[in-house]
Amino acid sequence: MTDTRLARPGDIVAIASDHAGVELKTALKGELSALGFVPLDLGTNSSDSVDYPDFGHALAQAILDKKAVAGVAICGTGIGISIAVNRHAGIRAALAYDDATAKLAREHNDANVLAMGARIVNADQAKTMLKTFFATPFAGDRHARRVAKLG
Amino acid sequence: MTDTRLARPGDIVAIASDHAGVELKTALKGELSALGFVPLDLGTNSSDSVDYPDFGHALAQAILDKKAVAGVAICGTGIGISIAVNRHAGIRAALAYDDATAKLAREHNDANVLAMGARIVNADQAKTMLKTFFATPFAGDRHARRVAKLG
Repeated sequence: MTDTRLARPGDIVAIASDHAGVELKTALKGELSALGFVPLDLGTNSSDSVDYPDFGHALAQAILDKKAVAGVAICGTGIGISIAVNRHAGIRAALAYDDATAKLAREHNDANVLAMGARIVNADQAKTMLKTFFATPFAGDRHARRVAKLG
Repeated sequence: MTDTRLARPGDIVAIASDHAGVELKTALKGELSALGFVPLDLGTNSSDSVDYPDFGHALAQAILDKKAVAGVAICGTGIGISIAVNRHAGIRAALAYDDATAKLAREHNDANVLAMGARIVNADQAKTMLKTFFATPFAGDRHARRVAKLG
């Protein structure tokens, strides 16, 4: 049976946030390492105000350039940065708010970026969602036809 | 002061869903009418299985073609259809899970499409979110610079 998980131990996973997500990004970098992935930190790394689209576009580009196999995107609500990431064909950012949506995003949408809001989920919730996201295979079948239509 | 709400009474608001969202779509069409908007129903209108990207792309195109000033997009989680809508430059779909995120999507992201998951929110929650979304003005200022960078 084909392994349709998103990443395997040793794979590089990009992670990016705006200033609102710096603290959560640090927590999730640790969790990515604990899961056996190699985090590629695309910033930001201070509390200075930055623009979330810069970091969303950079994250998508890193995956398109094959510098990473998948990504994690964070801003205050996750809404802004997920819009930026989803501007890029072939990249599917799922804004998840809990473990169930993180799981469905992999099963149904073959999401390759997990987007979260630092004001919405706490570090413990986010770590669980991250673990679920990377553990869940894509279900394929009719879902593959739909993902193809996303472009 | 400029009115930075998304739509005014009499304006056309497009609404689209896949089969999972048909029931919620019907409820929200009624709420759009109650708010004074004119709903433009882009389907689907049966429980037959359809592909959410078809409806997401059609919704974005309706706004780009100025057939509607804004939109509402529904699928099981809201994730799939929001990715489809956000493939289109100038269209910003916010996947909201509660009233607070619906509000922030307008204030910070100037979202012109509200995306929701029919498995995630019930009709009462969704109606409140819809009302909040259309009542909330865009905050502009630094947020306008960020929205411009979304493309």
